[in-house]
Amino acid sequence: MRMYDLIAKKKKGEELTTEEIRYMIGGFTDGSIPDYQMSAMTMAICFQGMSKRETVDLTLAMRDSGEVLDLSGIKGVKVDKHSTGGVGDKTSLALTPIVAALGVPVAKMSGRGLGHTGGTIDKLECFEGFTTGISDETFVRNVNEIGIAIAGQTANLAPADKKLYALRDVTATVDQMSLIASSIMSKKLASGSDAIVLDVKTGNGAFMKKFEDSVALAEEMVSIGTMAGKKTAAVITDMDQPLGYAVGNSLEVLEAIETLNGNGPEDFKEVVFALGSLMLQLGGKAQDDAEARSMMETVITDGSAKKKFAEFIEAQGGDASPIYDTSLLEIAKTEVPVVADCDGYVHRILAEEIGIACMSLGGGRETKESEIDLSVGIVLKKKKGDVVKTGDTLAVIYGNDSEKIARASELICHAYEIESTPAEKLPVIRKYIFSE
Amino acid sequence: MRMYDLIAKKKKGEELTTEEIRYMIGGFTDGSIPDYQMSAMTMAICFQGMSKRETVDLTLAMRDSGEVLDLSGIKGVKVDKHSTGGVGDKTSLALTPIVAALGVPVAKMSGRGLGHTGGTIDKLECFEGFTTGISDETFVRNVNEIGIAIAGQTANLAPADKKLYALRDVTATVDQMSLIASSIMSKKLASGSDAIVLDVKTGNGAFMKKFEDSVALAEEMVSIGTMAGKKTAAVITDMDQPLGYAVGNSLEVLEAIETLNGNGPEDFKEVVFALGSLMLQLGGKAQDDAEARSMMETVITDGSAKKKFAEFIEAQGGDASPIYDTSLLEIAKTEVPVVADCDGYVHRILAEEIGIACMSLGGGRETKESEIDLSVGIVLKKKKGDVVKTGDTLAVIYGNDSEKIARASELICHAYEIESTPAEKLPVIRKYIFSE
Repeated sequence: MRMYDLIAKKKKGEELTTEEIRYMIGGFTDGSIPDYQMSAMTMAICFQGMSKRETVDLTLAMRDSGEVLDLSGIKGVKVDKHSTGGVGDKTSLALTPIVAALGVPVAKMSGRGLGHTGGTIDKLECFEGFTTGISDETFVRNVNEIGIAIAGQTANLAPADKKLYALRDVTATVDQMSLIASSIMSKKLASGSDAIVLDVKTGNGAFMKKFEDSVALAEEMVSIGTMAGKKTAAVITDMDQPLGYAVGNSLEVLEAIETLNGNGPEDFKEVVFALGSLMLQLGGKAQDDAEARSMMETVITDGSAKKKFAEFIEAQGGDASPIYDTSLLEIAKTEVPVVADCDGYVHRILAEEIGIACMSLGGGRETKESEIDLSVGIVLKKKKGDVVKTGDTLAVIYGNDSEKIARASELICHAYEIESTPAEKLPVIRKYIFSE
Repeated sequence: MRMYDLIAKKKKGEELTTEEIRYMIGGFTDGSIPDYQMSAMTMAICFQGMSKRETVDLTLAMRDSGEVLDLSGIKGVKVDKHSTGGVGDKTSLALTPIVAALGVPVAKMSGRGLGHTGGTIDKLECFEGFTTGISDETFVRNVNEIGIAIAGQTANLAPADKKLYALRDVTATVDQMSLIASSIMSKKLASGSDAIVLDVKTGNGAFMKKFEDSVALAEEMVSIGTMAGKKTAAVITDMDQPLGYAVGNSLEVLEAIETLNGNGPEDFKEVVFALGSLMLQLGGKAQDDAEARSMMETVITDGSAKKKFAEFIEAQGGDASPIYDTSLLEIAKTEVPVVADCDGYVHRILAEEIGIACMSLGGGRETKESEIDLSVGIVLKKKKGDVVKTGDTLAVIYGNDSEKIARASELICHAYEIESTPAEKLPVIRKYIFSE
């Protein structure tokens, strides 16, 4: 078999066989197939696409390029959750203790933030002492005893995907549906869970800006998961504005705790409940959406979800006291409002600009090596559909450096699209995708 | 400027600017743009194509990536000739002395053979002592004094093309019209001639198998040459069988000498005359085709073309005596006929198979490092349209090794497509292409 022939075949629009895809990914991972052949292949794929079967084969080949985690030591149906990434997305913080309190074991790999999106591990580090540096044994024991453990991504999970993504990133071949879907799903399938719930964002702040593209990606991923033998479902959620009000590490932790107290923002709670409902159903803990929602309300009302969150933080070395006294969270002292300079209705809040504003305050990483300031961020006061009058506070900046605050203020002003006509309020949950 | 953005632009089907193409070729040549980005770009070009303007810009950028020869020291209108490569193509051997005898200066770069096609320099080395290792000064002086000089290709002629071709060759991106045309023309334009005549082969033994594709390539090249300020014309010639009867170095030299004696094969003479006519017209030596042909007949009849050939061989250190006594040419002593095993008409002679048969006798190079045997080869006895009866000799093999002869015999048998119905005889000159 020669990579040359596979490129020529795909260029002509023909389907690659399972063996050919395995040969290609194997050779690319071990370096026997050079980058310049693989980039010609990915470009050909951008034009000719891949069939569902090819996409599944590519996903499985990438999954098998490294370690595939064995979570059989963990009792129960393990349900993993993945988000395609958004701004203000603190969903995991509230969602995992809720479903864990209801008996769905959470054995999760999370990442750090890069660019305009935050990462769950950074947020969890707002609890002093919290660490993801736990042994495999502790990880399994914690899930079995408490119901949640979160670890950092190991280097050897789907290394073919890591290498391929890096190549796509510099050759303008990132935006192909099958390549995106297989990239995400190869890592999820290597993570060893029994079922997968996907949060696919849509809108200007999402990787997929168009609704139809988000749906297509979700369908592709649900189909891959199902064909790989995992129960998989997806929710398309709105990212035409940040999720909830808070953007920035400590501020988002605060909002997640408030949500576990029953006082979270409506849109954020709805995303948590939609995903939680799917996790409870796929995990066999609830019969239907109504039952799942009622169970989730119960663990919020009786405080058991919040208690679970504290147990989890403590089990990984963190000081959980801010969960019971949020004033202990370190939040930047300088508060600067951003005010409206016209009357009208909020039509959109460019989530990416808000994310960049938070990053420019020091709350996000420009490069992988950046140190971040967990205390800074932004709290939105007006959201899509809201009426604003000149002088109203649109958002409040929490910062530690006046120059950075000024820069963030400009970005936030630019992010708010205010028009004179009333704005339609679309629901935050745009669509559910189940396997066919 | 970033190569990433140029790839993304071409992927979307947009036109690259002159500056962008120069940046890309400059960076690729100096290594600052890596192979994996260039191969993604060439694959995108395969799908999105290039405009005429882009193709000219690419050609000129590649031309300027190395040395551009200055032939201003040579008097007269220098006309270069290029063939896309065929089997039995000894055109340069007969053509250059004819046009040189008529006052068109020939200052040519030639190559060696590789694979199933032969090279002019190998053929010229049938004259003992002949060398292309002459100084630039000798090269220019010889053209001015004798009318012909042939040198080997210098390494620094269009190095970007050399590098790009090597990359295309391993990434299945060779077959794109603009890339092929710019590759050929960048070298021709760097060679410093004033006008260019192109011999574009068509048929199973050619790089372009389909007639329409050959025409499109010829049109593209004529357009590039014209836009680059050089008078350019092309002829589409048949390669559905080898050109002439002889294939193999000494045998082809013999056939070329016979042609200069006025006894050449009809199809070969026609290709020489068609190309020669264009060279004389572009070189300002003849008003029209009729005049050019009559001039060429004259220099054959009066022996001045043959004399010019001998002068040229001697000026580059060769022993020219075989030109006057062809029995001095070293030809393999073992002659083995290949006979027909059925009655019918010759419909096609797979030129590539004949070329491979010659290579397998030792007459061609499998790799750049192969040593070749100039004495071996094949003389066809039946050509397209001929009637054959069982037992007729189709071709005669001249070889030095019985195993190699047996292998060549099989290949030749396979190359002859004999059918029961009469075969159409298409003219060897299929079409002329002039600039619009």
